[in-house]
Amino acid sequence: MVQTPNKQLVLLKQLPEGYPVVGEHIDVRESTIDLEAPLQEGQALIKVHVISIDPFLRSSMRGNSRDEHIPPVDVDQPMYGYTLSTVIKSNIDKFQQDDIVVGITNLEEYTTISSSDPFFSVTRVRNDIKNSVLPLSYYVGVLGMPGHTAYAGLFEVGKPKKGETLFVSAAAGAVGQIVGQLGKILGLRVLGSAGSDEKIAYLKEIGFDAVFNYKTTSNISEKLTELAPKGIDVYFDNVGGETLEAVLENANRFARIVACGMISTYYSEKDIGVRNLMKIVPKHITLEGFAVFDYMHLEDQFTNEVTQWLKEEKMKYRESTTNGIDGAAQALVDAMHGKNNGKQIVHVSSPSF
Amino acid sequence: MVQTPNKQLVLLKQLPEGYPVVGEHIDVRESTIDLEAPLQEGQALIKVHVISIDPFLRSSMRGNSRDEHIPPVDVDQPMYGYTLSTVIKSNIDKFQQDDIVVGITNLEEYTTISSSDPFFSVTRVRNDIKNSVLPLSYYVGVLGMPGHTAYAGLFEVGKPKKGETLFVSAAAGAVGQIVGQLGKILGLRVLGSAGSDEKIAYLKEIGFDAVFNYKTTSNISEKLTELAPKGIDVYFDNVGGETLEAVLENANRFARIVACGMISTYYSEKDIGVRNLMKIVPKHITLEGFAVFDYMHLEDQFTNEVTQWLKEEKMKYRESTTNGIDGAAQALVDAMHGKNNGKQIVHVSSPSF
Repeated sequence: MVQTPNKQLVLLKQLPEGYPVVGEHIDVRESTIDLEAPLQEGQALIKVHVISIDPFLRSSMRGNSRDEHIPPVDVDQPMYGYTLSTVIKSNIDKFQQDDIVVGITNLEEYTTISSSDPFFSVTRVRNDIKNSVLPLSYYVGVLGMPGHTAYAGLFEVGKPKKGETLFVSAAAGAVGQIVGQLGKILGLRVLGSAGSDEKIAYLKEIGFDAVFNYKTTSNISEKLTELAPKGIDVYFDNVGGETLEAVLENANRFARIVACGMISTYYSEKDIGVRNLMKIVPKHITLEGFAVFDYMHLEDQFTNEVTQWLKEEKMKYRESTTNGIDGAAQALVDAMHGKNNGKQIVHVSSPSF
Repeated sequence: MVQTPNKQLVLLKQLPEGYPVVGEHIDVRESTIDLEAPLQEGQALIKVHVISIDPFLRSSMRGNSRDEHIPPVDVDQPMYGYTLSTVIKSNIDKFQQDDIVVGITNLEEYTTISSSDPFFSVTRVRNDIKNSVLPLSYYVGVLGMPGHTAYAGLFEVGKPKKGETLFVSAAAGAVGQIVGQLGKILGLRVLGSAGSDEKIAYLKEIGFDAVFNYKTTSNISEKLTELAPKGIDVYFDNVGGETLEAVLENANRFARIVACGMISTYYSEKDIGVRNLMKIVPKHITLEGFAVFDYMHLEDQFTNEVTQWLKEEKMKYRESTTNGIDGAAQALVDAMHGKNNGKQIVHVSSPSF
């Protein structure tokens, strides 16, 4: 029995109430795995290449999370999230040795996936990636869950029409930068907000029509009135809170608000609330929450269209990459504080293809 | 020139910040009108029989109102609202002497309507009412704007399916009592809340499956969990605030929230806000505001169906009637405090037919 080192991103015993802290609430821990051990029926052993750092990881830590559709991680156990991996060996029909798989797995260097995992149906064989000219990490980003979320949320929930005004918050993030570029491809006027001048510069570079740094803007509602003189028709909401209130003031009649996330409420002890929700009545505004899992039937259409736009360079995608799983815990905390520029990725190992 | 006495419901100079007070913010004032004076082109003179007391009257007083789609009343001038009247004389093609008209007019005993009035298009000739077996007041209530609001909101915005659970707040009010009964006709399980035991008893009488007095319920969310063990699919929201928060806790995936009004926010200095709006994301809840004016194309269908249901006694409608315009100001204030049982009406004069 040969034990191979296997580092894991682990949830510690003390659950975070607000922002997690490395060493207090999460950490990367040394472990071992016997790669020669026989697999049970319905299991596959995989080697992880890329970990995607997504906001839902915070929800899985529970504590005071309000986002309860995400199963909690057991304390003292590896966290779970989106990964891109190679199959080492498999007792599951749909997976063969050397297959590339993208899906939700434990966040460790080697891991076992089981057909009884709650998210097993999300995991896909993606051997087309072996011949792709695009970066491997794109398949857990712009071509993965964040891209699919942007695509389904904007087109299916937001129902934008050419010439309308779209506003995106957290616009430089994993989802927001895609939403804005999809909006430009459709012929919308696209506004965005983000939390640093560096992010604002990036948004201009990728074609946003007007952008602002919400951290240095004293009155977001007045800023939106200035940047959207014709009002806002579609708002892709990643943050909730004060920005959502400002949008309700500036929304047009029949505006659609795509509620993708409300980050501003994730880390606070108490949600201060949206105080002008009454605006939706006279303006006939629709506010609709969604998750990508309700739009899995669009996966092929999304993959084909966005792959094409990336290859034609109609779309760009910025990532912030941490090399090695050792930095995964800090990368996660930094992303929660908005310190990363673009989609946060952890490069764990290189594939052999 | 003969001057005829003409009492008016008038907005006084001091605008209300919270609940209006008779004599301070509104009052009934003696005035006169010359009924023999020649009419201008595009004007008609009418005699008012019934005044409908609706929540939007508060919005027209401005002050701290958040419901800005309603034009403000000029201070020291008559308020406006829904009335049922007889045409005395007319210089408007669509109105003839002795026609019954239902629409939005000044709230006074005699008044002039003009084709340039902002709500002129809403006003209808309804001579069918002369032969109706139903009470005259129904035509500004269950068969008027409140009924049309209930019908369009429940069916077009709420999109209920037989067997689902519907919850209605302010359920004994002008709109709520209709929504609940429409829900029963469609085969829904119908829950309701109201603010007095007397109202609760009425809701049971008209077929609500489960009801509660929100003023004597310590935890609305727990009460809803108890009364809706399968969760809430459609919520017809007349109140907003704490009740809306409780519904978000108890809503099913893909629930629809029909935002008709948010009374709980109308009279407070500061809207305390909806603090768990994040729930709409994982549950894929849709929250949609609306006003009846977006559904005028359904007017005939609504009128025909609801008239039939009333005649067949499949629906009931409770009204609270004040006799004489002298009591109109107090009736309005009482309705805002929820003191009325059922739709509040002011009977101003009897028609001659």
